[in-house]
Amino acid sequence: MNNGKGMLRLWEKGLPLDEAIHRFTVGDDPELDKRLLSFDALGSAAHARMLAHAGLMPVKDAQALVDSLASVAARARHGEVSISPAQEDCHTAIEMLLTEQLGDAGKRIHLGRSRNDQVILALRLYMRDALLGIAAQTAELVNEFINFAQAHADATMPGYTHLRRAMPSSFGLWVGAFAAGLSEELQALQAVYARLDRCPLGAAAGFGVPLPLEREYLAELLGFSGVQISPADVMNSRGRHELALVNGLASIGLVLEKFLWDAALYSMPEFGFLDLPDAFTTGSSIMPQKRNPDVVELARARCRELRGHALMLQELAGGLPSSYHRDFQLLKKPLFAALDTSHELLAVLVRLVPGLKVNAERARAACGDELYAAHETTRLAQQGVPFRDAYQQVAQQLKDGTFKPDRSALKSSHLGGVGNLGLELMAAELKAANEWIASTCAHLKCCADGVWQGN
Amino acid sequence: MNNGKGMLRLWEKGLPLDEAIHRFTVGDDPELDKRLLSFDALGSAAHARMLAHAGLMPVKDAQALVDSLASVAARARHGEVSISPAQEDCHTAIEMLLTEQLGDAGKRIHLGRSRNDQVILALRLYMRDALLGIAAQTAELVNEFINFAQAHADATMPGYTHLRRAMPSSFGLWVGAFAAGLSEELQALQAVYARLDRCPLGAAAGFGVPLPLEREYLAELLGFSGVQISPADVMNSRGRHELALVNGLASIGLVLEKFLWDAALYSMPEFGFLDLPDAFTTGSSIMPQKRNPDVVELARARCRELRGHALMLQELAGGLPSSYHRDFQLLKKPLFAALDTSHELLAVLVRLVPGLKVNAERARAACGDELYAAHETTRLAQQGVPFRDAYQQVAQQLKDGTFKPDRSALKSSHLGGVGNLGLELMAAELKAANEWIASTCAHLKCCADGVWQGN
Amino acid sequence: MNNGKGMLRLWEKGLPLDEAIHRFTVGDDPELDKRLLSFDALGSAAHARMLAHAGLMPVKDAQALVDSLASVAARARHGEVSISPAQEDCHTAIEMLLTEQLGDAGKRIHLGRSRNDQVILALRLYMRDALLGIAAQTAELVNEFINFAQAHADATMPGYTHLRRAMPSSFGLWVGAFAAGLSEELQALQAVYARLDRCPLGAAAGFGVPLPLEREYLAELLGFSGVQISPADVMNSRGRHELALVNGLASIGLVLEKFLWDAALYSMPEFGFLDLPDAFTTGSSIMPQKRNPDVVELARARCRELRGHALMLQELAGGLPSSYHRDFQLLKKPLFAALDTSHELLAVLVRLVPGLKVNAERARAACGDELYAAHETTRLAQQGVPFRDAYQQVAQQLKDGTFKPDRSALKSSHLGGVGNLGLELMAAELKAANEWIASTCAHLKCCADGVWQGN
Amino acid sequence: MNNGKGMLRLWEKGLPLDEAIHRFTVGDDPELDKRLLSFDALGSAAHARMLAHAGLMPVKDAQALVDSLASVAARARHGEVSISPAQEDCHTAIEMLLTEQLGDAGKRIHLGRSRNDQVILALRLYMRDALLGIAAQTAELVNEFINFAQAHADATMPGYTHLRRAMPSSFGLWVGAFAAGLSEELQALQAVYARLDRCPLGAAAGFGVPLPLEREYLAELLGFSGVQISPADVMNSRGRHELALVNGLASIGLVLEKFLWDAALYSMPEFGFLDLPDAFTTGSSIMPQKRNPDVVELARARCRELRGHALMLQELAGGLPSSYHRDFQLLKKPLFAALDTSHELLAVLVRLVPGLKVNAERARAACGDELYAAHETTRLAQQGVPFRDAYQQVAQQLKDGTFKPDRSALKSSHLGGVGNLGLELMAAELKAANEWIASTCAHLKCCADGVWQGN
Repeated sequence: MNNGKGMLRLWEKGLPLDEAIHRFTVGDDPELDKRLLSFDALGSAAHARMLAHAGLMPVKDAQALVDSLASVAARARHGEVSISPAQEDCHTAIEMLLTEQLGDAGKRIHLGRSRNDQVILALRLYMRDALLGIAAQTAELVNEFINFAQAHADATMPGYTHLRRAMPSSFGLWVGAFAAGLSEELQALQAVYARLDRCPLGAAAGFGVPLPLEREYLAELLGFSGVQISPADVMNSRGRHELALVNGLASIGLVLEKFLWDAALYSMPEFGFLDLPDAFTTGSSIMPQKRNPDVVELARARCRELRGHALMLQELAGGLPSSYHRDFQLLKKPLFAALDTSHELLAVLVRLVPGLKVNAERARAACGDELYAAHETTRLAQQGVPFRDAYQQVAQQLKDGTFKPDRSALKSSHLGGVGNLGLELMAAELKAANEWIASTCAHLKCCADGVWQGN
Repeated sequence: MNNGKGMLRLWEKGLPLDEAIHRFTVGDDPELDKRLLSFDALGSAAHARMLAHAGLMPVKDAQALVDSLASVAARARHGEVSISPAQEDCHTAIEMLLTEQLGDAGKRIHLGRSRNDQVILALRLYMRDALLGIAAQTAELVNEFINFAQAHADATMPGYTHLRRAMPSSFGLWVGAFAAGLSEELQALQAVYARLDRCPLGAAAGFGVPLPLEREYLAELLGFSGVQISPADVMNSRGRHELALVNGLASIGLVLEKFLWDAALYSMPEFGFLDLPDAFTTGSSIMPQKRNPDVVELARARCRELRGHALMLQELAGGLPSSYHRDFQLLKKPLFAALDTSHELLAVLVRLVPGLKVNAERARAACGDELYAAHETTRLAQQGVPFRDAYQQVAQQLKDGTFKPDRSALKSSHLGGVGNLGLELMAAELKAANEWIASTCAHLKCCADGVWQGN
Repeated sequence: MNNGKGMLRLWEKGLPLDEAIHRFTVGDDPELDKRLLSFDALGSAAHARMLAHAGLMPVKDAQALVDSLASVAARARHGEVSISPAQEDCHTAIEMLLTEQLGDAGKRIHLGRSRNDQVILALRLYMRDALLGIAAQTAELVNEFINFAQAHADATMPGYTHLRRAMPSSFGLWVGAFAAGLSEELQALQAVYARLDRCPLGAAAGFGVPLPLEREYLAELLGFSGVQISPADVMNSRGRHELALVNGLASIGLVLEKFLWDAALYSMPEFGFLDLPDAFTTGSSIMPQKRNPDVVELARARCRELRGHALMLQELAGGLPSSYHRDFQLLKKPLFAALDTSHELLAVLVRLVPGLKVNAERARAACGDELYAAHETTRLAQQGVPFRDAYQQVAQQLKDGTFKPDRSALKSSHLGGVGNLGLELMAAELKAANEWIASTCAHLKCCADGVWQGN
Repeated sequence: MNNGKGMLRLWEKGLPLDEAIHRFTVGDDPELDKRLLSFDALGSAAHARMLAHAGLMPVKDAQALVDSLASVAARARHGEVSISPAQEDCHTAIEMLLTEQLGDAGKRIHLGRSRNDQVILALRLYMRDALLGIAAQTAELVNEFINFAQAHADATMPGYTHLRRAMPSSFGLWVGAFAAGLSEELQALQAVYARLDRCPLGAAAGFGVPLPLEREYLAELLGFSGVQISPADVMNSRGRHELALVNGLASIGLVLEKFLWDAALYSMPEFGFLDLPDAFTTGSSIMPQKRNPDVVELARARCRELRGHALMLQELAGGLPSSYHRDFQLLKKPLFAALDTSHELLAVLVRLVPGLKVNAERARAACGDELYAAHETTRLAQQGVPFRDAYQQVAQQLKDGTFKPDRSALKSSHLGGVGNLGLELMAAELKAANEWIASTCAHLKCCADGVWQGN
């Protein structure tokens, strides 16, 4: 009753199987699961340690498993572990390896868990890690936006509303918005992290196991802030967690899409406020004169793509009763795709922002007198004219052609104004975010080391 | 150049207007804005106090404005303020009222702000308030789930995976999942609240104003944790914030949808585990024998509707350059609809959960021996048989018809297991959430009182 | 056992009812169903005629029912029939009215049908009608686009790709695209109509009825092309049909969104190619100089809103087993909203397009020599230089500053080119679409007259 | 200025390039474009023939190009043509190959077109082909559903509404719904085909070319029903067409999702109406007794995945001004993914349906007397009791426990009823669909042969 490799599929009991159907059920898992291998190995090692600690496994078996798993994890990180279609997924591949190497100890690893909680643990370890990576990239980009805003704090440009010139603004004020927006998203990512920061293992198939598992100990080993208590909620949170994370990524995309749209417009000759670096533009196959802002457009589309991945996850996460259904297998692909998209998008933007060239002259020249109409209204109001009357007076001047504002009469000195961008406050928020990222990464590294080395 | 009421539209300067087009631009605002009136009045009162504090408005004008606005807010809460199509929105309606009542003081209210930051402030005050209301309802429902789980902690039922009976579970374990899931969502709502907890006023049209506004003072008056510094980010966060809130609501829906699906199935005669209260069922127009679970189905559909509202907001929030565009006007409708849906859904569930009747006998009877196969496997494993071998032995017994588990041999005593649901930990989390809700509401009430009464 | 009006809810049998729950189940139906009343009356009249024809109802009862229903339909079209919350929906309201007026004849109307097929019939009659209305508006807009393209066929403007000036184009070529795109959507609407053109009545609750219904006769009476044979598919098509229609509307929106985006850009001073009519712009509350393209922006957002409605319907239509579930009640709201949005959007655009003013001078001036680089490449290629070599030669000239194209050397005379827009072919397609609309409307009117008057 | 392979990127003119950015712009195109290669080759061959026919290319160059392209197409169909990252896409790869092999003739191929219309042509040829493949699979599945319905036309089963037993139905009636629903979708696919059936080539970058292209001749060569006249609409239809096709696929998914949900439920022991073939079920990693309906669940999830792909395309297709933007590059991936999903889903279902085993006894036993309440009501109504009174009488009997229906009193003989399923009409529709598929495929094959062989 083996499948020609001397090993069984975990659930195999000798029924007829059909290769086409098998391929349909396995799907892309052998490829997708590659990125889960090292996390599954870490989770399995912690599981073995916990079993031993609870007296449910001989200590030497646990140590042998941890050692073997450490080797799997190391090789997986170098792309040296493959998963065959017959193995179906990373969990089976690892159990097979362990059983091959260790015999009975390998056959003991699955005690007290199910593939259901095992894959959720692997995904959660992976998502925790990936989230921290995205957070670090986001923080790096915030830094670039702050630097850009600082460098161009005094460069005047027209502020637009309704895509119509409205009031005088500055390049610093424009770009400060993206630092601020991303900073908010970094906060939001921490809340998503908190969702992911509870250990699911021990839920088994969603109903626990009849063993005195030490779930709190396990959670601590793996650096979680606690146990995800309800085994049924562990199953029910599948999809909900993925969606929460990808919604967070899509919200980063909402911030960046505006920047990219602006960059696409402001670098048009019709505006002329920005030049894109040559390396970020490409040519046309029939129009020799063209330089197209392809990178900006593709990055913009990636922001929409992030929303598309969130929509996909929303479709897949909902519409089912409690507990595990095989439908959930399809959640991995859009999750991984959204993380890859975010990673690539942020990597490009971190290089694009410092490469933008500001045409300060052209931008200043675009600020005609009429952009100072609100200023003039405000000036009159400060002299005692009720604001609404001042508004009508200025409107009349504009109509009569007599409008001539005193551009230097008023300064925007309040917090956030052109003369007081508050970049140092944003930098302080960034510092706090970076500290959270660094300390969390250090904590996870320390816990993983403990699992592998048994401290 | 007035519109027959002695007052102008705020931006009116005498150009031709076309009624059909006017109706198109106004849309549903006169109706939708009704729920913003009292929040806009509060924000305007705080704005007036800040202007006076900064020396930008005579103190007695500010006091007169606050008094008038207090009356507007009180009448609005009783539905006694209407907005005419000619007024377009709540902001114009209020400014007109103030100017009618107070003359020049009314004309001074708009100094230092724009309708852009004004509406964002009103929406943010509204969303903050509505979020707390939803959180309180959610907390109430968590309490009902915990009570139900407690009452039926020992009632055995089959646990399902893939919609197939899998292992013994209990009604307590089943329903505990929804307490746990909602508890996580309550945490997530607090993170959404943090997004909303920064004061946008002073951003004006997105570029600040040339006045020494005291934005920090204003933020404190209105009970915000701080200022949303970047005026351009204030504009850019329009849509992103609405989406963050509605994603939070939709995630509550993801939890509840599973409960409702389960309730629909478990109350089928084919299962027979639950009876729905009569008041929650309706009949058929042609089949006299039928009682249909309409309320459960409609509530389930409302969970999907929440996702639909999130999708709508995602469509509307993205795809635009920085700054304000009139497109954003359409954001209000799905936001309000999603909040209403959540409110109605939670109100129904708070009544449904305690009304469910458990058929303990029928559920126990559905737990045949075969559900104890994993238990038996585990028992063998505890006796030293490697887990994977034990699995094959039990499989063989099942095939041979010799399988006879000792149902009472093993207990699931770990945290979250059938014998140790951890409900007291969930209750502690609920208590913390309720304390956050109560203290936040008290803080906001205290701040609002301060604005109205000048403490 | 009556509800105070001497009548029962159709399915009422005396069980306890709870008003809050009742309101939750009824939802917005009393308001929403108003627009179904006249269609439900028509369907019921045809049903009565069929029953009489099949010998399942006395002829004089059928005639009395038809007469009463004619009066209901006429009053409903004038908004004079209301539906009370106690009545729940239009079906109950009408049956109650008939029973009040006609006694036993009223009580006979429901033989051979269920509310399930009844509401599907009413919705289908309504959707068929609404689709034709949208098609007629779309056709009107195609006509405006063709007229505009004709009027400005010779006005040169820069053609953009990647939002960068690319090649010379014309206002006619630009706007011809929207005539062509909408023309394709008109074809697609006819395919949606074909989906709706089968009569569902007789499906009852999805399993037919034990009576010799004459379904083919009924289909003919109501002007359907045939019977929707499978009663179970009648139920299963609920949601699928609504989605197909709204996808069609959203696809119209995809065409128009591009036009509106273009209009927003081309009317910016930075481009200056178009002026929007004053009636389509509004002002700012603080910037006296501004005229904002609010109508264009709102119309653009309506296109996105259409996609949002489609997304909502997609959420609601899927995720359920076969047959009727009360979840479907929520389908009506987004369906109606999408139809209203389409109607309002098209009504505004039919007025906007002819009001656009072309600044031909400014547009021509924006076509610099470099836009003729592809022309020059083509000219060289026609002289025998391989195209790719010609491309490099022109690229070199552009780099050296020696590029000087002969702008008049080449004409774009192929079908669709600047000199041969093919508007007459588009006009012919439009004519065919208009003929389909007119003949279908006439057919439906003739059938309805036959139902009411018994021809 | 070459890239080390003696060939240039089509638009390369010597500016600095950055490899990371290059990879970002190229994205997955080298992999994705593999499936476009043979279609791009066919389109290019037709283009060459047209240029020669119009006197714009020497006939012998055209013949050499066609011969080379025939070889490319043949090798591409066997997976023997690869696209390097430096080549970026299939268009460049092919032009490079031609230039390597043929010198100047290769450099002439791009005259009169742009990559913009070239890729749209390749995609359209591909989509046309893929649509026909999906249609053929769908037709095959309709046939399986009809066969199943025929075989089990007399097997009674309970009909469910609201997931509650409602009225007697049959396996034939249940499954006939899916034949009918898919048949409607096959019609709808033909309408999508009509959208795709116009030739885009000649649009170039969206503004035509200054050459006397013979677009009608080209359209005929490639088997299109006509020319897509407006070059600007050719660009604007990018995304709209992909979405129309994938919406069509998602609508097929809406039909099948219900079948799969039903199959998941009806094969539960709680129902027991169906047995799934062993090959379509898998086991559990910890519960030896389990057989899970994984294939049914995965297929159900694939239906949701199709909606997810449609949502992604909707995100990507909208939100942009007219004309080409590089954002569109991302459209290919979800389009191809949706086609693959549809293909795999249909392939599995074609095997699943005939493998389902009906438990006729168990299903019949589930039809208790109470399911005949509507029948009894109808019987009384036929004897003259007004329907609504009969309904109350039967309700009373049910309450009193005196209800005893005459199950054989009435037959459902109308079209679509249990006794008259109308399967022969469905078979006739299927025949027509199959004829359309066959004749369209033959037409395309004949045209392609003509292009390659010059008939």
